Amino acid sequence: MDRYPILSRVSRPADVRGMSGSELIGLCSDIRRFLIESLSSNPGHFASSMGAVELTVALHYVFNTPYDRIVWDVGHQAYGHKLITGRADRFHTNRKLGGLSGFPNPDESEYDTFTAGHASNSISAALGMSVASALNNDSPRRNVVAVIGDASISGGLAFEGLNNAANTNSNLLIILNDNDMSIDHNVGSLNSYLAHLTASKGYNSFRYGVYRLLKKLHLFNDNSKGRILRFNNSLKSLLTKEQNIFEGLNIRYFGPFDGHDLPRIIKVLDDIKDMSGPRLLHLRTTKGKGYVPAENDPAVWHAPGCFEPESGERKSESKDPARTKFQDAMGSTLVELARDNKAIVGITAAMTSGTSMNMMQQEMPQRTFDVGISEGHAVTFAGGLATDGMLPYVAIYSVFLQRAYDNIINDVAVQGLPVTFCIDRAGLVGEDGVTHHGANDLAYMRTVPGMTIASPRDADQLRSLLYTSQLPDRCGPWAIRYPRGYGHDSHKPMQRMTVGRGECLSRGEDVTMLTIGPIAFEAAQGAKLAAAGGVSVAHYDMVFLKPLDDEIMKEVAASGRPIVTVEDGTIDGGLGSAVLEWLAAKGHNLPVVRMGIPDAFVPQGTVEQLRRLCRYDAASIAETIMKLKK
Amino acid sequence: MDRYPILSRVSRPADVRGMSGSELIGLCSDIRRFLIESLSSNPGHFASSMGAVELTVALHYVFNTPYDRIVWDVGHQAYGHKLITGRADRFHTNRKLGGLSGFPNPDESEYDTFTAGHASNSISAALGMSVASALNNDSPRRNVVAVIGDASISGGLAFEGLNNAANTNSNLLIILNDNDMSIDHNVGSLNSYLAHLTASKGYNSFRYGVYRLLKKLHLFNDNSKGRILRFNNSLKSLLTKEQNIFEGLNIRYFGPFDGHDLPRIIKVLDDIKDMSGPRLLHLRTTKGKGYVPAENDPAVWHAPGCFEPESGERKSESKDPARTKFQDAMGSTLVELARDNKAIVGITAAMTSGTSMNMMQQEMPQRTFDVGISEGHAVTFAGGLATDGMLPYVAIYSVFLQRAYDNIINDVAVQGLPVTFCIDRAGLVGEDGVTHHGANDLAYMRTVPGMTIASPRDADQLRSLLYTSQLPDRCGPWAIRYPRGYGHDSHKPMQRMTVGRGECLSRGEDVTMLTIGPIAFEAAQGAKLAAAGGVSVAHYDMVFLKPLDDEIMKEVAASGRPIVTVEDGTIDGGLGSAVLEWLAAKGHNLPVVRMGIPDAFVPQGTVEQLRRLCRYDAASIAETIMKLKK
Repeated sequence: MDRYPILSRVSRPADVRGMSGSELIGLCSDIRRFLIESLSSNPGHFASSMGAVELTVALHYVFNTPYDRIVWDVGHQAYGHKLITGRADRFHTNRKLGGLSGFPNPDESEYDTFTAGHASNSISAALGMSVASALNNDSPRRNVVAVIGDASISGGLAFEGLNNAANTNSNLLIILNDNDMSIDHNVGSLNSYLAHLTASKGYNSFRYGVYRLLKKLHLFNDNSKGRILRFNNSLKSLLTKEQNIFEGLNIRYFGPFDGHDLPRIIKVLDDIKDMSGPRLLHLRTTKGKGYVPAENDPAVWHAPGCFEPESGERKSESKDPARTKFQDAMGSTLVELARDNKAIVGITAAMTSGTSMNMMQQEMPQRTFDVGISEGHAVTFAGGLATDGMLPYVAIYSVFLQRAYDNIINDVAVQGLPVTFCIDRAGLVGEDGVTHHGANDLAYMRTVPGMTIASPRDADQLRSLLYTSQLPDRCGPWAIRYPRGYGHDSHKPMQRMTVGRGECLSRGEDVTMLTIGPIAFEAAQGAKLAAAGGVSVAHYDMVFLKPLDDEIMKEVAASGRPIVTVEDGTIDGGLGSAVLEWLAAKGHNLPVVRMGIPDAFVPQGTVEQLRRLCRYDAASIAETIMKLKK
Repeated sequence: MDRYPILSRVSRPADVRGMSGSELIGLCSDIRRFLIESLSSNPGHFASSMGAVELTVALHYVFNTPYDRIVWDVGHQAYGHKLITGRADRFHTNRKLGGLSGFPNPDESEYDTFTAGHASNSISAALGMSVASALNNDSPRRNVVAVIGDASISGGLAFEGLNNAANTNSNLLIILNDNDMSIDHNVGSLNSYLAHLTASKGYNSFRYGVYRLLKKLHLFNDNSKGRILRFNNSLKSLLTKEQNIFEGLNIRYFGPFDGHDLPRIIKVLDDIKDMSGPRLLHLRTTKGKGYVPAENDPAVWHAPGCFEPESGERKSESKDPARTKFQDAMGSTLVELARDNKAIVGITAAMTSGTSMNMMQQEMPQRTFDVGISEGHAVTFAGGLATDGMLPYVAIYSVFLQRAYDNIINDVAVQGLPVTFCIDRAGLVGEDGVTHHGANDLAYMRTVPGMTIASPRDADQLRSLLYTSQLPDRCGPWAIRYPRGYGHDSHKPMQRMTVGRGECLSRGEDVTMLTIGPIAFEAAQGAKLAAAGGVSVAHYDMVFLKPLDDEIMKEVAASGRPIVTVEDGTIDGGLGSAVLEWLAAKGHNLPVVRMGIPDAFVPQGTVEQLRRLCRYDAASIAETIMKLKK
């Protein structure tokens, strides 16, 4: 910490409050250098936190945290916040098993007020806190600040929060951290509108100047309703003449201001912090600020992996032709299929590079739709497209597709529309932790009548599933789920697969093992260990969860062998449950052990660590198999 | 049909297009009289459709349906649409088994373009259709019209649609049918804003007048981009000076106009129908228009039940003190508990009267929050309140709570916050049909770690569960689900219940029957029939789905009797699956037959008819029990 002389003096935000202006600026500089050095070797979300350094310092300087509350939306930007709230010395454990969470996490610190990770929830959560403070008659009234990016504020949940902010007795301050980016470049009309507000900056500054003058003259005291009522009408109209979207929703708007001008932000926050009613402060920031490579390419530097701090050279991953990222197999296959099948359209929700939908976007921009952080709209929009002959492919991370559960049912499945859900980041995701594991998709998709649910074992199978899903005889909605990271790839030509048909991977005598998806490889490893111990395993890859392969199930039931199911998803409601249901429905009574994610929130760590923790790593599987033989 | 001389001439919308102005007005009058007479004896959604008669006639007059598409949001207002699209002669079957759906339904008519029933989806769906038309190079370009109410447009999904409307090559017309009501009175800033737009009507009319003039002079042709660019700047500013929320989102705004002025609406629609790009037409309408009792009390007349057409007297339901509506038991108990427990707050999402949350709203308006059609916000807001010591009770219908699945997990359960979900309309709902059955809540709630899930058998048990849920030792989130309609009520005093403890309702020797919720009574009826056939049933009410009662399960497993499970929910993932999982985990192999809603979309009908259809009526249950004994 010696290299960060000012940061090293901060063990909690109160230490920041005693600093001079130049010390505060030095603190910002220390935070940035700390982030560069730390994240260069221990990868994390880089550019967002770099862009929010001044904002972070200003918030803790002006507000009395933790009594006052800051709710970070998503939380990619909150590393600086972690550093000045007593966690700098543990920051090297960031995103590691047992270490600091990469997101704000109330279990970790009283300064982390609410679960982050899923965009657009900060306004609603902060509104709840603010209303609670009013109901509790807190004295002094607690200030609650929601910090939300321009991408997150375009989500429907954020709008619902904005629409309700003025209707309750709340004291909410919303900071709009506008860097014109989500992970990729931002989309949507609201975003263009924010640019328009920025363009009319001069006018808005003038309004703020008038407001300050009035306040100085004690003509305008927002804490007293009486004063406002006596407020001179013509002056008031000066302040409210150009009603913008936020003011249309009864939220007072201030900005835009330069989010890196620390003295200015502190002054503005001081000015508006004690106003009553909901307010929005619009700050323009630069994602990656203070690190040139990141400023130049903020999408890549959102989470750059390891890099060389001096040069900004990123450590490239070694290429292995036998392994392909599942997302890339999806992205490239979709383009290939779409060249011939003109009905195919691609949709994603601010995960263009993360799902590799950018491949299609690049080649067929007219047929590729990034709808921003709007998972619900993505699905219903796909439903609309499908009613008129299109074949939409909706690529969304598993945990975020949860947000469109009702849309999947009501706007797609009820009509049996041919929408394919490409569910990325399914199963354990590793370092992003508790809020990001795609644990539930198999279980919740299984509740949807008419849904075909498949999970490919490798890149070849993913390609063949995609190929099959766009053939003329496909029927109803499909869900194809695959994990983050790499899968085996033999670069086989795509081939038609039979819906509901699994595959026997190995014959065996003692125990039946049923798996779905790439966990087959871990499970096969477990079977190998068991074989070494003298237990022989018949291993089937079901490929399809729904419909479940009747032929395999009949064979399995007839064998009378005990069964172990292994899936990279919650065991309550997924493959294991489907197998139990099938057996019960057909009147078979066989021992079944289900392995997978338990009914608990799983922390962060490497996927290997977490599988061990959840006890569906190869060793645990082998152990279970051995016990089953007895 | 003789009593409706003009309506009787309409077998399809093309017949409307040939009518004169006075005939059209006569048609509106016929539709209204038809609705009054028909719905007075065969109940349905009344006031919404009465308010949309002129709009309906105008849309089918101006647009070339079914080539042009109308997407009705929710669909409560679409009865008039059904009458003029060839369904008047079948309208007496409305909401009955095998009859017309109470909502637009694509299976029923080519004029019904998309599944309705869940608010706020029309803009996204219509946008998809419009984009599909562009991609298909349809000639002529298909017009797509979304008709959305002022309550629905405040939902986050609608905002996501609006935010994306201008970013795609679409030709979307949004009709905002603004009657200042959802089912109850409307809330939210957007709603106040719409009132403000109405207040500034003169100004907006002037703008529209300028637009018409320019169009007449051929100075303003929206179909040609070139012309717009050459458009005189100062004139343009006249049109765009007061930028409203919709125009901020790049959607051209027209209105407000009187939605009952048929000639005017037709003229305006004619004017704007061929403009390119997204447009919004704001119509002010009166819910219940044309029937005085409904105009005076539109909330009650949303779905009034049977009534006397002349007097407007509603047929009251007979009171039976031994039966209480579950929703009323919830509403009254919550008030009672909240009087003593100051931490309790109530939240609903535009279902204030439907969930009987209006009881608390009336007595404790400061602690009761109707957030409008914003299920996601309702849940996250509850999460925020709970972080600061409040005990929120979120009352939402089962099928709509699906919209907040991710919020339940991420914004409540991850933090283990003490939010109680009062899940109304769980299980089969009857006449509202396929889009409204609360089939999945047991299954999807079971995927949420740490969630306590209970379902009361009767009103007494519901009260005791609510009582228990607010005691100091309650832990984490709770879900309490109960159906639409009445439950038994002995008016017993509330008592503390043990979490995870079920109840043995009857002892028996041959078969074990496990149930949850009020389906216990139907199941007991089945057991009685079986007993008459010589099969004796041990019946347990589990009360809690999660945690499942270990003691009961041990007893049941030890008995070795075959098991039948009965639940008013989907059998894949619910109680039956939980029982199978428990048995498998403990190594028991017993025959289990699961009864409940099958893996299929269930149509409309009376609950009794549908239970029979789904084969968990008393007779089917008896039959299953008899077979199990063998």
